[in-house]
Amino acid sequence: MATLLKGAAVVEALNQESAEMVKHLEQLGVSPTLAIVRVGEREDDIAYERGATKRCEKVGVAVKQVTLSGDCSEAELIETLEGLNADDQVHGILLFRPLPKYMDEDRVRNIVAPNKDIDGITDLSLAGVFTGVETGFAPCTAQACMEILDFYGIETKGKRAVVIGRSLVVGKPAALMLISKNATVTVCHTRTIDMPAVCRQGEIVIVSAGRPGIVDASYLSEGQVVIDVGINVTEDGNLVGDVDFEAAEPLVGAITPVPGGVGTVTTSVLVKHVVQAAQRTLE
Amino acid sequence: MATLLKGAAVVEALNQESAEMVKHLEQLGVSPTLAIVRVGEREDDIAYERGATKRCEKVGVAVKQVTLSGDCSEAELIETLEGLNADDQVHGILLFRPLPKYMDEDRVRNIVAPNKDIDGITDLSLAGVFTGVETGFAPCTAQACMEILDFYGIETKGKRAVVIGRSLVVGKPAALMLISKNATVTVCHTRTIDMPAVCRQGEIVIVSAGRPGIVDASYLSEGQVVIDVGINVTEDGNLVGDVDFEAAEPLVGAITPVPGGVGTVTTSVLVKHVVQAAQRTLE
Repeated sequence: MATLLKGAAVVEALNQESAEMVKHLEQLGVSPTLAIVRVGEREDDIAYERGATKRCEKVGVAVKQVTLSGDCSEAELIETLEGLNADDQVHGILLFRPLPKYMDEDRVRNIVAPNKDIDGITDLSLAGVFTGVETGFAPCTAQACMEILDFYGIETKGKRAVVIGRSLVVGKPAALMLISKNATVTVCHTRTIDMPAVCRQGEIVIVSAGRPGIVDASYLSEGQVVIDVGINVTEDGNLVGDVDFEAAEPLVGAITPVPGGVGTVTTSVLVKHVVQAAQRTLE
Repeated sequence: MATLLKGAAVVEALNQESAEMVKHLEQLGVSPTLAIVRVGEREDDIAYERGATKRCEKVGVAVKQVTLSGDCSEAELIETLEGLNADDQVHGILLFRPLPKYMDEDRVRNIVAPNKDIDGITDLSLAGVFTGVETGFAPCTAQACMEILDFYGIETKGKRAVVIGRSLVVGKPAALMLISKNATVTVCHTRTIDMPAVCRQGEIVIVSAGRPGIVDASYLSEGQVVIDVGINVTEDGNLVGDVDFEAAEPLVGAITPVPGGVGTVTTSVLVKHVVQAAQRTLE
């Protein structure tokens, strides 16, 4: 029977921390504000926007929704972002991606000012994850994995960690953050040979494979801490992770549930980053 | 008996490639030029400057030596770098580090224009290693390890690679580059528990531990490819790597010698980066 690393308790702690910081900032005349920039009406984006807005309101962070039509030009989007960069009343900018295919995403994402880049999408934010210097913010999902480990007091120093996935938003930043936290880190991906054998060696396993239930018992070993980043919708409309939970739960030491795990923490990390961005304007 | 992965052959191939590019660029009216910025008279720097200058001359790259006194101000150094950024006749800038302790190295290194940052010291260069987008250049030593693997036709795809060291100039960029080259990569460091056992699992091992001969037979297994980044001076004035060469050579499949391995290739990578930087001004 694995310990369930539920996101709710982490969310509560993060929200409380954020709410206290907001209170303090408001006393100093600063109202932390997040601008959410959405292009078009993709359902995923709208759902996330709703969740993020709710979470922001809960801790006292204001939200400014900026919605552009699905066929807006790249120039229009860039102008919008530059306006938000220049607006002292906006502390964080969340830009939904992927952008429409006719846009140069590498150019557009780097328009966001790093000090407002609360989801870690700019090169300078990513460089900060690399160097350990806070030039921007880490991608929220990778940061959420670390918050869960921290909250539940899971030691990383000297531990063998395996990260499945090498994306810019989860795999690579999570690996670098674990290295900073003194874990011995292995990164696996689609080209890895005998991934189950590699994965079984991890004491901490972060799974961001993007395929439902792909991590079965063959990947797992006794006592492991498993952080499941996957969020997949099954044919019958249920949410499942990248880990086969039924197979994992009797075997490993601790595991995050899906839903109710990493995903929910990610939103609170986003909110915390907005508050931190507001805080940094005073430093 | 291990195959010796000698740097000389890699250097020759890189130099030939660079020389041909230089010839082509000169026909287009561009003379690739490296500015070497040195603060003070540190022996290491002077030796490297001499080697780099010689290597540049060999392939037709011009060198502009800019030497500031050991007690120059940070403002003076920044002004010098900004002048070189603005100078269209300069394509690459090599800034020796560490800088004097009274300087803010993080600020100064980021003054270098990323498109002239041929040694990968700016945040934007490092972000490029992270994202795989060429915003600057990779750190030369990490790149030299990849050049050696490429030159000797060593397959990385699906191979288990172990990187010892997590520095910004070798360990982290080498790990990310190996991930891009489809290896399954493990990063070890001083906090790794039972590093010999971890290291023995690598089919490719990149050693940048900074301690002479620390990697002995207990770290190694049959058939491994060992890239030794270490350059250490022994008490009797000899150069040795971080790998105990005598112990490794009978056991592993291939190994870089020290001297005559990674170090010599690094200089040719630097020169190639200058030529590439000049090339990019035409694109």
